[in-house]
Amino acid sequence: MITLKVNLGERSYPICIGKNLLDRSELLTQHIPGNSALIVSNETVAPLYMNKVEKSLAGLKYKTLVLPDGEKYKNQETLNTIYDCLLSNQFDRNTTLIALGGGVIGDITGFAAATYQRGVHLIQIPTTLLSQVDSSVGGKTAVNHPLGKNMIGAFYQPRAVIADTETLNTLEDRELSAGIAEVIKYGLIRDIEFLEWLEKNIDKLISRNTIALAYAIDRCCKNKADVVAADETEAGQRALLNLGHTFGHAIETGMGYGNWLHGEAVASGMVMAARMSEKLGWIKPTDVDRVIDIVERANLPVKAPEKMTSKRFLEFMAIDKKVSDGVLKLVLLKDIGKAVVTSDYTQEALMETIADSY
Amino acid sequence: MITLKVNLGERSYPICIGKNLLDRSELLTQHIPGNSALIVSNETVAPLYMNKVEKSLAGLKYKTLVLPDGEKYKNQETLNTIYDCLLSNQFDRNTTLIALGGGVIGDITGFAAATYQRGVHLIQIPTTLLSQVDSSVGGKTAVNHPLGKNMIGAFYQPRAVIADTETLNTLEDRELSAGIAEVIKYGLIRDIEFLEWLEKNIDKLISRNTIALAYAIDRCCKNKADVVAADETEAGQRALLNLGHTFGHAIETGMGYGNWLHGEAVASGMVMAARMSEKLGWIKPTDVDRVIDIVERANLPVKAPEKMTSKRFLEFMAIDKKVSDGVLKLVLLKDIGKAVVTSDYTQEALMETIADSY
Repeated sequence: MITLKVNLGERSYPICIGKNLLDRSELLTQHIPGNSALIVSNETVAPLYMNKVEKSLAGLKYKTLVLPDGEKYKNQETLNTIYDCLLSNQFDRNTTLIALGGGVIGDITGFAAATYQRGVHLIQIPTTLLSQVDSSVGGKTAVNHPLGKNMIGAFYQPRAVIADTETLNTLEDRELSAGIAEVIKYGLIRDIEFLEWLEKNIDKLISRNTIALAYAIDRCCKNKADVVAADETEAGQRALLNLGHTFGHAIETGMGYGNWLHGEAVASGMVMAARMSEKLGWIKPTDVDRVIDIVERANLPVKAPEKMTSKRFLEFMAIDKKVSDGVLKLVLLKDIGKAVVTSDYTQEALMETIADSY
Repeated sequence: MITLKVNLGERSYPICIGKNLLDRSELLTQHIPGNSALIVSNETVAPLYMNKVEKSLAGLKYKTLVLPDGEKYKNQETLNTIYDCLLSNQFDRNTTLIALGGGVIGDITGFAAATYQRGVHLIQIPTTLLSQVDSSVGGKTAVNHPLGKNMIGAFYQPRAVIADTETLNTLEDRELSAGIAEVIKYGLIRDIEFLEWLEKNIDKLISRNTIALAYAIDRCCKNKADVVAADETEAGQRALLNLGHTFGHAIETGMGYGNWLHGEAVASGMVMAARMSEKLGWIKPTDVDRVIDIVERANLPVKAPEKMTSKRFLEFMAIDKKVSDGVLKLVLLKDIGKAVVTSDYTQEALMETIADSY
């Protein structure tokens, strides 16, 4: 088992990465301060892993809550089912919410933990590659609003992240690829060596080579922990982690939540960001080819859906969280392996990028 | 004008108290970092003071949102009207929410600010005595749930609190008394000198003597700022500020939100807490009389409503936020002017207190 630490003063916490961690009950229970817990999962993950987590909680007052699976359920209605469950079972302020699942479960359970009785304890048990490398770490929690993804949320750190790499064996191929999108992201924004490693080893990830996956998760979490420790609430450089996400969120919202997986939309968005960076003269055409190549090898989309007209892109991008005083900041590539958050771009480059994205 | 400071490191902020502060636009605008703002008020307060606040925002992109008035609207449905307004007007992460009204407007607008795009700026302009002496300071934000008051919320500090004492002139007598309940609270929990002052001057407060009101607001805010600075998220002594609130919240929830004003329920709850402290042998019968006397002089209820049977009290108190691992902590009086947060009481004393409260 590898243990990393997210350094946030008194809100610091460990990320545990390894095989069969769900069988080690002490990993979980040592982070539960009270005598009660609610495990929140979904109908896909619960049949596979709920039992293991329940076993670890023997002796505590606990309940389980199984939500429907999918991004389209990451909304206030589903959030209310968590609140209702907590209140009707008289869960108190010293309770712990355990998010067992992918990014959707982590985000919505995290937001419930942030807001129930003004904040209860939270443990993340991510079971998808995307949540293990990215969404379970760093404390971003949210639900979607019909007008924009992740528009209602909070920064709220878990007490621990427990990533059992064995859970990836039950992941669908499409979900695995979606996770690799975020893996590639770390290489592109701040870790050129890792990008080079990925270019050599991406096929191993696709074929679920255990050692390669563990290495990638570790490397991604290290990158994420560094960025989050330096800028917990995204006042500045944390926004780098959003490479491809402004375009991607527009696609997810515009296409209807869940039709494109988050990772797929981000993949397409990263290609758009690379193309735009090239139009601005910051990276070379061969760099764009490099981005397209690695995204394609991960079986991810390199084009935007045609249904996303320029008008729709601009409409959804206008309410992106990186808009400040009416100006949209974008994450673009100053170089391959080096992203920047910038409003230093032309509207023409943006319009051309959208036009060329299909 | 008096300016106090809530000391919370980088989240420190001023409380400005004085006459006609709403006419001084710079007091407001200096705390708006971006170029946009949403003023949230209710249908009672907006006709009186919205114009003044709007005048201060000349030159900014701003909108106004007028909510229905009353505790029964402090819920998720009303919260959603704030989110919808923000999103449909493309308000971004650098926007400022301005809460113009009493405790309900402050709490719900504060929670919207805490959660919209994971947190935007917030300024509190309290216009009731209760919100000026208590709820606008300290960063507690929340909405109610049918099963419990303030069950969904966050700790989220404003950038400034601007308390214009002139707004108290338009307050209904019943609302003024409700505010005095929280004023009395500060005397009882930690400021015996202030309690003695109140015993001499309560009639001046009731008759809206400007100097007496300004003195009381200042003194309460100083007390609150001290407590909050020492324990922002209520890990310990901040709970002292909840004297009478566990009984009071049960009354508010049990009677239907808005039928008893918050301050009225707290007044009745403080008498219950005093009675219970006496049953435990901590204070004298004459101390209880003293509490009853000052509460009565403020035209506040000293009895619980008969509809609140013991069963209903216990039902709602079981989901109080001061329950931890199944044990309910109560705020009781170790002495007059000195409250404690404790689970060191007998169930008998609690049952007798409820039985004697009607």
